[in-house]
Order: sequence, then C-alpha cells, then structure tokens
Amino acid sequence: MAAAKTENLSLVVHGPGDLRLENYPVPEPGPNEVLLKMHSVGICGSDVHYWQHGRIGDFIVTKPMVLGHEASGTVVKVGSLVKHLQPGDRVAIEPGAPREIDEFCKIGRYNLSPTIFFCATPPDDGNLCRFYKHNASFCYKLPDNVTFEEGALIEPLSVGIHTCRRAGVTLGNKVFVCGAGPIGLVNLLVAKAMGAAQVVVTDLSASRLSKAKEAGADFVLQITKESPQEVASKVEGLLGRKPDITIECTGAESAIQAGIYATCSGGTLMLVGLGAEMINVPLVQAAIREVDIKGVFRYCNTWPMAISMLASKAVNVKSLVTHRFPLEKALEAFETSKKGLGLKVMIKCDPNDQNP
Amino acid sequence: MAAAKTENLSLVVHGPGDLRLENYPVPEPGPNEVLLKMHSVGICGSDVHYWQHGRIGDFIVTKPMVLGHEASGTVVKVGSLVKHLQPGDRVAIEPGAPREIDEFCKIGRYNLSPTIFFCATPPDDGNLCRFYKHNASFCYKLPDNVTFEEGALIEPLSVGIHTCRRAGVTLGNKVFVCGAGPIGLVNLLVAKAMGAAQVVVTDLSASRLSKAKEAGADFVLQITKESPQEVASKVEGLLGRKPDITIECTGAESAIQAGIYATCSGGTLMLVGLGAEMINVPLVQAAIREVDIKGVFRYCNTWPMAISMLASKAVNVKSLVTHRFPLEKALEAFETSKKGLGLKVMIKCDPNDQNP
Amino acid sequence: MAAAKTENLSLVVHGPGDLRLENYPVPEPGPNEVLLKMHSVGICGSDVHYWQHGRIGDFIVTKPMVLGHEASGTVVKVGSLVKHLQPGDRVAIEPGAPREIDEFCKIGRYNLSPTIFFCATPPDDGNLCRFYKHNASFCYKLPDNVTFEEGALIEPLSVGIHTCRRAGVTLGNKVFVCGAGPIGLVNLLVAKAMGAAQVVVTDLSASRLSKAKEAGADFVLQITKESPQEVASKVEGLLGRKPDITIECTGAESAIQAGIYATCSGGTLMLVGLGAEMINVPLVQAAIREVDIKGVFRYCNTWPMAISMLASKAVNVKSLVTHRFPLEKALEAFETSKKGLGLKVMIKCDPNDQNP
Amino acid sequence: MAAAKTENLSLVVHGPGDLRLENYPVPEPGPNEVLLKMHSVGICGSDVHYWQHGRIGDFIVTKPMVLGHEASGTVVKVGSLVKHLQPGDRVAIEPGAPREIDEFCKIGRYNLSPTIFFCATPPDDGNLCRFYKHNASFCYKLPDNVTFEEGALIEPLSVGIHTCRRAGVTLGNKVFVCGAGPIGLVNLLVAKAMGAAQVVVTDLSASRLSKAKEAGADFVLQITKESPQEVASKVEGLLGRKPDITIECTGAESAIQAGIYATCSGGTLMLVGLGAEMINVPLVQAAIREVDIKGVFRYCNTWPMAISMLASKAVNVKSLVTHRFPLEKALEAFETSKKGLGLKVMIKCDPNDQNP
Repeated sequence: MAAAKTENLSLVVHGPGDLRLENYPVPEPGPNEVLLKMHSVGICGSDVHYWQHGRIGDFIVTKPMVLGHEASGTVVKVGSLVKHLQPGDRVAIEPGAPREIDEFCKIGRYNLSPTIFFCATPPDDGNLCRFYKHNASFCYKLPDNVTFEEGALIEPLSVGIHTCRRAGVTLGNKVFVCGAGPIGLVNLLVAKAMGAAQVVVTDLSASRLSKAKEAGADFVLQITKESPQEVASKVEGLLGRKPDITIECTGAESAIQAGIYATCSGGTLMLVGLGAEMINVPLVQAAIREVDIKGVFRYCNTWPMAISMLASKAVNVKSLVTHRFPLEKALEAFETSKKGLGLKVMIKCDPNDQNP
Repeated sequence: MAAAKTENLSLVVHGPGDLRLENYPVPEPGPNEVLLKMHSVGICGSDVHYWQHGRIGDFIVTKPMVLGHEASGTVVKVGSLVKHLQPGDRVAIEPGAPREIDEFCKIGRYNLSPTIFFCATPPDDGNLCRFYKHNASFCYKLPDNVTFEEGALIEPLSVGIHTCRRAGVTLGNKVFVCGAGPIGLVNLLVAKAMGAAQVVVTDLSASRLSKAKEAGADFVLQITKESPQEVASKVEGLLGRKPDITIECTGAESAIQAGIYATCSGGTLMLVGLGAEMINVPLVQAAIREVDIKGVFRYCNTWPMAISMLASKAVNVKSLVTHRFPLEKALEAFETSKKGLGLKVMIKCDPNDQNP
Repeated sequence: MAAAKTENLSLVVHGPGDLRLENYPVPEPGPNEVLLKMHSVGICGSDVHYWQHGRIGDFIVTKPMVLGHEASGTVVKVGSLVKHLQPGDRVAIEPGAPREIDEFCKIGRYNLSPTIFFCATPPDDGNLCRFYKHNASFCYKLPDNVTFEEGALIEPLSVGIHTCRRAGVTLGNKVFVCGAGPIGLVNLLVAKAMGAAQVVVTDLSASRLSKAKEAGADFVLQITKESPQEVASKVEGLLGRKPDITIECTGAESAIQAGIYATCSGGTLMLVGLGAEMINVPLVQAAIREVDIKGVFRYCNTWPMAISMLASKAVNVKSLVTHRFPLEKALEAFETSKKGLGLKVMIKCDPNDQNP
Repeated sequence: MAAAKTENLSLVVHGPGDLRLENYPVPEPGPNEVLLKMHSVGICGSDVHYWQHGRIGDFIVTKPMVLGHEASGTVVKVGSLVKHLQPGDRVAIEPGAPREIDEFCKIGRYNLSPTIFFCATPPDDGNLCRFYKHNASFCYKLPDNVTFEEGALIEPLSVGIHTCRRAGVTLGNKVFVCGAGPIGLVNLLVAKAMGAAQVVVTDLSASRLSKAKEAGADFVLQITKESPQEVASKVEGLLGRKPDITIECTGAESAIQAGIYATCSGGTLMLVGLGAEMINVPLVQAAIREVDIKGVFRYCNTWPMAISMLASKAVNVKSLVTHRFPLEKALEAFETSKKGLGLKVMIKCDPNDQNP
C-alpha cells in the first residue's frame, strides 16, 4: 500500500538542462480538491523553456518542479466538500486556480490574481505525472464525445479564446495573425469560430504556414526581408483593407511594429507573444488612429465555452497533435518539442490507455 | 426619351387589399444618390401586411406607396458627389438611410433616428420596381462571388446580425430561438456564425422546424399545448442547461413568458417578434435573475459585415429562397407569400436577367 | 469564560410577527473567517418584511434566524488563513459571500451564485447581534475618515451602485428615479456621482420628495392620479427631453409602465423595486424603441468603490440616518422602521460605543 | 452691401511665423449650414504650432488658413434645410464635421473619418474671425445659463470626455494624470465628474500643479529627476495603490514609461499627449499585466453631454480662462499663449460683446 502510494512517475525539472523522471508520492486531495489519474498532457513552449533555462523572466526554478499544464485526466478521489465531480469523471484541468478570493477574482479576472496557483510555474508543481491533485472548481467534466487530448488542448485553445475575446473579434472581421506556431493557430481557429470573415497568417516558416492554411487561414504570407511597413502593406493587399484586429504571437519588435502599421483605425492590436523588455515602437501611430493595444496574461473563463465548442464540433483542434510519447519517454518527447518538429507533442500518462 | 423615362414598372399599394403594377417615372439621382437598375427584391411580411391592412401600427398608407425593401441592383447613374460607386457596380441596398445627422446617427444608432428614410414604410417608397434611386452611402458594392439574391437577403440577415450582436452572442453560447420563420432562421444562422455552440428552435409548425434543422439547428421542438414553464423546461432539457440567450421571434405572449422562464440567470432575452401592445409577463422573474430584456428596431451597421460573411462563405442564405417570380407577376408572388408557402419569395426586377 | 461565550445578544425572527432578543453563543471563526464585534446595523425593508410575514417570496423563515445585513464592526479574531485583516481593524461587511467558486463567481457575477451565503436570508443568519463571524474576503477595512454608520450604509448604497453601473449611467445623463425611499435616494446619489446631469425623482409622498430634494434631486414630482403616459410626459417636460435612464424603485405596475413610456429610445429602464409576479406592460413599446429592461439582484463588486467614494467625500450618505437605537431596543427600532418614519433606522450593537 | 460682405476680420496663418489679420468675405451658408457671428475662440496649442512651424506632422499649411477651433457664436443665418436652429441662437461649435457618411460615421466614431472637415487643420479654415459658416448638425444650442466662453471651452473639455470615456473611468477609480496643462486639467475635471475617487496630477512645473490643486486634484507631484519607476512608485504611494487609469498628456517617452509601470494590472493607460514617432517602452510590462494602451484622436459625441454638465454646474471650466484679447489684438494673444502664461487665452470676436 505504501509502495503504491509512491508509484507516481513525474517529470521534474531541477534546473537548467536538468530534467528527470522521478517517483513522487501520490498526493491526498484536500476538502475542495480532487485526485486525478492523468491521461494526456501537451508540452508547451514554457515547459521546454524551464527545462532549457531554469526560468522565465522573474519565475525561477529554485527547487525541483513537476512540469506540465496542458492536461486532462480521470477523477479517482474527491475531497469532502466536492459536489460536482465524482470518481470516474473525465475532466480537463484549468491550470490556474486562485488561492484567495481577491478583488481580481471578484470581478472575474482571476488570471490577474497575484497569489494564484498555476501548474508548472515556480514554485507550483505541474501535472506531467501519473497522479495529480487539483482544485475541484477548476476541473471541468468532459462530455463523452470530447477526447482526453481535446481536453488537454483546451489550455492552448484558451489562449486563443481569451485573446480573441479581449480583441472583440466579431462577425465579418478581417484578422491578421502574426506567427503560425500553436498559439497563432489557436487564434486562427478561434477567430474563425467567432465569426471572422478572413484571416491572414504570417510566419518566417513555409511549413508552419502550410499548417495554417490547412487549419483554415484564408491567406498566408511568408515573411522574408520586408520592413514592418511593407508587411502591413502586403497584409492590407491580401485582405482588401486593413485588418480590424491584429494578433501578434511572436514578440518580435518588427512584428509589433508591423501590427501597429497594419491595424485599421479604431481597431485592436493584441500582444500575445512576449519578447524583449524594452521595445521601440511607433506608439503615436497607434494612438492617433485609436488602435488599442492590449496584452493577455494566460486566460480566464474559457474552459466551459471551449468544452461547448469541442462538443458541438465547432472547432477542430485534433490535427494540432503531431507526436505522442508515453510518460516513460517524456525526455524524448521534450527533445522532439525542442527541435520544433510538428506542432503539439502530447505525453500519455496512463500506461493502460494511450489513446487520444 | 421621355417614353423611356416612364418605363419604370413599380408595385404600388394604394390601400388595404389594393396592390397595383404601375408605370412610374424613372427618378433622377441627387448629388449624393445613385440610380439603380433593380435586380432582386425579397417579399417581407411587412410588405404583405401593408397590402392586406394598409398599415402597421402607426405607419399608415395614406397615399400610393411602392413596396419592397430587401433589395439589390446595379448602379446605372451616380450623383455628382458620389465617389465610391460607379455605373456597373452591383450593390446591396440598405433600406434605411438617415435624412439628417441627428444624435442617434452621431452615436452609431442611426436606426433610431426618427426622421430616417426607410423603403416601403409610409410615406417612403420602396424598390419593387425597375429603377430606383437611393442614398449612395447606403448602397454597398457586392463582390463578384456574392449573388444579387444574397445581396437582397442581407436585409433579413441584418435582423439576425443586429439581434445577435445586441444579445452579445459569443463563443460557446447556448441559444433558444423561438419561431422558425425567416427571422428565426436568420437568427439561427447568425448565432452559429458568431460562435454559438448549440441552438434549439421552437415553432408550432413541423415543416418550418424541418427547415430549421436543415439550416443547422442542433435541436428543434414542436410546441403544442405546453405552458410557458413547460416550454422552458423542455428547452433546458435539450440544451443540458438554461440557454444564455433567447431570441423571441413570434411576439406571442406565451412565447415571451417562456423566454423569461427559459433564459439563464445573467442571460439575455431578445424581443424580435412584435405582438400585442399590452402584454402580461413575469417581469420580476427576469429582474431578480438579471435576465436583460432587449428589443430590436430594424438594424444598423450590418451590411459591410454581412457582405464579408457572404463573400467568405461563412453563412449560407441561398436556401432561404424558395420561390421566384418576375416583376410582372408580382401580384402572384404576393399571393404565394401570403399563403406562407416556402420561406422567401424573390421578385426578379430585371427582365434581362432573372438569375439568382 | 463559557459564560462570556454566550454573551451575544441577537435579534432573532422566529416566524411572522415573532421577533425576539436572545442570547446566542459567540461563534468561532473558521480558517478563512473573521470574528467581528458588531457596531452599526441598519434596518432594511426586508428585515421588517421577514418579521411581519415570515417570508419573502420563496425565502421562508422555517427556523429562527438572526436579522440584519447592513452592517459594520471591528475585527476581534482572525482565522488561520486570513492575511489582509487583523484584530482592531474596522470593517464594512458585504452580506453575500459565495460558498463555492461556481461559474457565476468566476465571471465576476457572484451575486447570481445560487448557493451564496447571504446574511438574514433564510436559512442564513444575519448580523444584528453583538458578535458575528464572516468570510474574511467579504469584510473590507474602513479608512479612519469613514464612520461605522457610513460603513453600514454601503449596503444600500451598493444597490445604487450596482443599478447605476448596470444602467450605464454616464456623464451628462438625464435620469428618472421612480420612488423616493432609501433605494431611490441611493440611486439618486450614485447617479449624480457617476456624472448624471439632471435627476428627477417621483413619489406619492411629499415628505419623501423633500428628502430627495435635499439629497440633490434636480426636480421632484409628486404623483397623484396621473396615468403612466402622463407621468412620462411630465418627466420629459421637467428634463427637457426623455430621460436616458429610468430607475424604477417601487415595483408598482403603473410605475413600470410609466418607465417604459418615459425612457428615451436607446435608453435603459432598470427594475429595482419588486412587485407582483405577473405584470401588464407595453413591452412592444420598449422593444421597438430599443429601451433595454434590466433588473438587479442585490449587487457585486461594490464595496471597494463605495469605500473609495466615502473616503474621498464624493458621496454623502450620512443624512440618510434619521433614527438610532441601541441593540437592546431593537424591537422599538423595528416598530419605528415599520411605521415608515424617517429614512434609515440604525441599530447600535456595541454597548460601549454608540457613536455614528 | 458688397463692402459689408467683406467685413470679416480673420486671423490667417500663411506659413511658419507668418500670422496676419485679414479681411475675408462673409461666407454664404449652404442648405445644411448656418452662418455664425463668432463670439469667443480659445487659442489651442495646435494653433500656436501651425503659426510657429507651419505644420503638425503630415498636416502642412500650403495655403493661407484661418486659425481657431475652440469656438462659440450666434446664428445669424440658416440654410434652407436647417430645422433645429434659427437666427439668434447661441451655439457651441464642434470643429469636426464629417464630409461623407462613411463606415466610421455609421458606427459612431466619426472622428476617425479620413475625409472629415476640421477647423484649422490644413486645408480647412478655422473660425478665428467675425463670421463663419459651419455644418448646422455640429452646432449645438447653448442654454441661457451657459456662457459663450464655456461654450468655446467645450472643445478642450471634449478631449477630457473622450479620453475618460474611452478609459472607462468609473465610480471610485484612482486616476493618475500626467501633465498639468489645459488637457491635463480637463481630464482631471472630467475624471472627477465621472466618479473618480482620487486623482493625482504630475508635472515639471510647480505653478501648473498649483492650478491642478485648485481645480480639484487630490494629490500633485512635481517631477524632477525621478526615473519612470520612481514616478510610478510615488504615484502608488500617494494613492495607496496603483491607479486604475493613467492619462498621459505630455507625450514624453519617460512619462509613457512611467504610465506603464504605474497603472494597475487590468487597468488602462490613455495616450493623449503626442511625442516622438518612435518610442522605447516596456510594452511587455503592460501586456502581461493586461494594462490596455489606448490613444485618442480628437473626440466624438461629446458636445451634448458637455452642455448638460455645464448647464447643471457639474463641472466648472470658467477658471481655465486666464487671458482675454479682442480679435483685433489676436497677434498679441498668440504671443501670450506662446509664452505659456496662464492656461487658456480667449479671443473675443464680437466687437460689440466682449463679455465671457
């Protein structure tokens, strides 16, 4: 029994370049928590970054931390106060769960709560493991027709939802998505689902752009040596007019500049990609044309609507998964992700069920 | 030449039950107007109502009035100040065009302007005719891949857009559309295009509901003798929870009551159908659950986004057209529409081009 | 010590007409709670209603319940997890505290949470007593320049804030407040503080209207036998045009009708007063003029901004208090409140400090 | 008669440094225009800039242009289609009047219309003259209790209204206004009128800050050598927490940086001051804290609410006027304004009425 309690294989980062598969104890859920048998966990760029650099900005790995935050699993035990879940429920996990009901939580912007728990952001452990406990209010039951992998993909999809919602994407919009990685693609998918009429996606990589095209981009544009103004001009040419909304997913200074030049007067530029701390931008160009500039920090209030959309087949995220590895081969999975092969690498944590 | 000037066959209502095809002079566009050769004009319930009753509420036919306001055509002449259109342009016509820049216009709600010109609302003539002049700012160029009939259907589609936009339909919403006539169907189409996950449509008529099903309704519910509370309960059962938004398109007292009971706390009930002046409703039930009740008066700011959606094939309205008649047979067309056969009866005004 | 533990004089309603002062045990705060020594508690119409009728709608007093929910006090003990408060802190109490983080809470509309704890709503006890424990996240520290009574008055003020915010009151608005009781007055105060240019207040009672005039109403109108349309017409006459926003605080059918007729096209009618379950209204008149109808259920996210406003002296609520009674004389206080004498009756719970 | 027609003394800029008082013909109003006898016209920084530099950005004085756009006067003649005004009406003039009903106008953001007429922006003449014609829809009747000078001050006040409205200033907000010139002061006044609880104003100049203090600033802070982070920290110290909204009125790079650091997570930074084309900013700091960055281009939909506020005495702008000159001494007035003496220099255009 005690032995069983420690059979919790976990992927742990100890510092830059130091990633280990280790056995952790199986946690015991508190009164408002559930214990989950993990099923599918996607690798995010931030996971790779913690492995490679041991930090992201001010978030520093100072003690061993389990990675993983794009996840789904099955409830195996529920805390004493949990009413909406029971053992056997298949759930998607929202990795951010507020620790206290502060003013950000009260107004519905809990992602901004400074004391929030967040999977795999130091010092909080993630869920790339066999067994994981989580705040039950942030575990969402999956309908039968939504797979575990779709459940895990709600996390990146949520970035797209939160971004497009804050951008105010609406019927008939023309949208410019800068960057064709996973975040660019989920923004493309969500913008379309919210009624965007045309989306143009740009990237340096032709292969990424072909993925964007497959995912529904109306136009793709490979960037080579164009100036920001030239990029803006080409985007306008493809769409027939300046885009209502630009979603910048690269963080590159030149791309942000292009976003300012490209967006139509009265439109919105969303900053999703994170780059250098200080950046040189034609801010006055945005200001006098009332192009609003908004960033996103993670997301809030996205899981229920994402599940509704997946259940109704209104968005298709399945094709984002290009690689799968069992948890035992997590290091190989991370190497694959680091090389930028494919789009989303999925780690299968349940040795008895490696299905999507 | 003078003869040609009067070759403008027009469908004119003279009073209750008195509908005539007459020759009108071809109008001369003013400096900000364009002269249009009409192509396709849909028959609206209000057109039939003016024919049958000579009035709608306070709007009374006191002198002969040309009917028709769901229309598209080709520019044949432009006023001296018109810059964005030229002869040969195919356009969709927004029937409401403000006469003055009042405070409603300035804030972008020009549909509420009390002095607005509106096709086929007494005393303003409509465009069921061969040649018609209109404010050029309210004629919108159609892309090559949007047909004239799609252009004409932007008018009913606009009711759906204005309603869903005021309702705040967004990603993952569950929506209850009450009534499966043309207005119910365009609301269904638009709600889906704006990201609604599931839409349930109710009606008394099984044949209308089958049309709704074809148009994409996730669930349909035929109403027989249910009480408003029972309807609400069945809708909740189908959707798995109360709808976020209810769009009431019948105007029936019992349906409005059902809408109040059905809508989830914090949701919105849209009143699109118009019924009796005084109505008995459980208003306190809406108030204490913060179910907002909003009506719509026509629409504003919908043509550009509708054209974008039609051009990108994001909505399909073509199947709404079930009957076509040449202008010469307009009376027969009105008889067909009055009988409630099919969905949308389209009148073809160009004797040389009767295509969609 | 055990004796001291029971020295908690509390005002308890046992059923219709059965109100008693009893000794309750002093409660022990849980980990996220604080124990408060109560100072000032205002009597609300709902308190009187529970005493007189033993119920409000579906909320029925089936077991003895402590009354009171407009309250402030001093922290005397903090739970183990409480960080933002400490003994000695003077606080205002938000009576509604969610029991679970459901979807309403997550989006910032926690007042709609069906499982919320709410002081003096059956079966939850209120705080008309000497000692009371409450969720620490819903106790707000008062600055030195805000009195306990102002702290207690944040509760009715919050109804005004929530209403005016949902109404979208903004700079230069003309506002019609129907009803000059405490709720009408707080709406008047808040509308002015949010930038309303002119407010007209109506009531049946001349003495109430003189209070409204003192509180800053630009116009008052005593209603006698006017029809709803006549009331609307007089309001328009006083304001020079139809009001942008009508705030209905009486619940009377005729007043709601007047509100619909009075409000300008594109405006908003707020339903604050609660009346009969079914009501006869000219709903189509609201719908076709796009007059939105919105109710309020209590409030959310109002305490911090109310405290800021009180601290900066931007609103003055002190004059709302017309009577004060020590807790020992609570029954006399309730008799006074029942008679409708004055505006707000304040009960002083701290025998050692009966100051405002 | 012909002589009278040319008695229209006007202040004309011919190029950099070349400002002349000249006689222009009295214009004839078109059908939708009114002819105005000018009364009071304030000097704006942009007027001085055109005089000194002959250009602002891409707007270049290539032919003689009458200056002035903060103005009020009396209707002396109305065009044939004008209904809401008549000779003798005292009006405030909104200097921007759309030339065509484009998509920006239709959605209520006519200030973004690229073809808008705007007083004293090349090539459009302003109204620093005796007689001036203007689009009647953009002339607003002044109530008897609003002076001509208050009418003229609606223009700068509108910048404050448009900014605070786009910022979403609401009840209880803490606001940081950077810059204590006329634009900083109107933002201070409007923020307070919209319910801001506390406003801190910063500037380099102690004398400007004392004006801000008089105008109602809760705190003022004189900037000397502080880094942007230090400014942010001091602002937070004064307000007790980070401001909800920062209104940057200087355009200085360091001030914009301070605005980003200062604003609370989830807050808004408004860019009102215009500085260098390219600017170095910690954009990622804004993005990850969801601090939205918005600019303003002039204003729209502000005159009616400003008049309501002035009529109800809810804002007091009279003290902004520190100097007055008759039109004949306009060059002296411009010298005074250039020297930065006082706040607002008002030019009195009616030789028979030099009153406020």
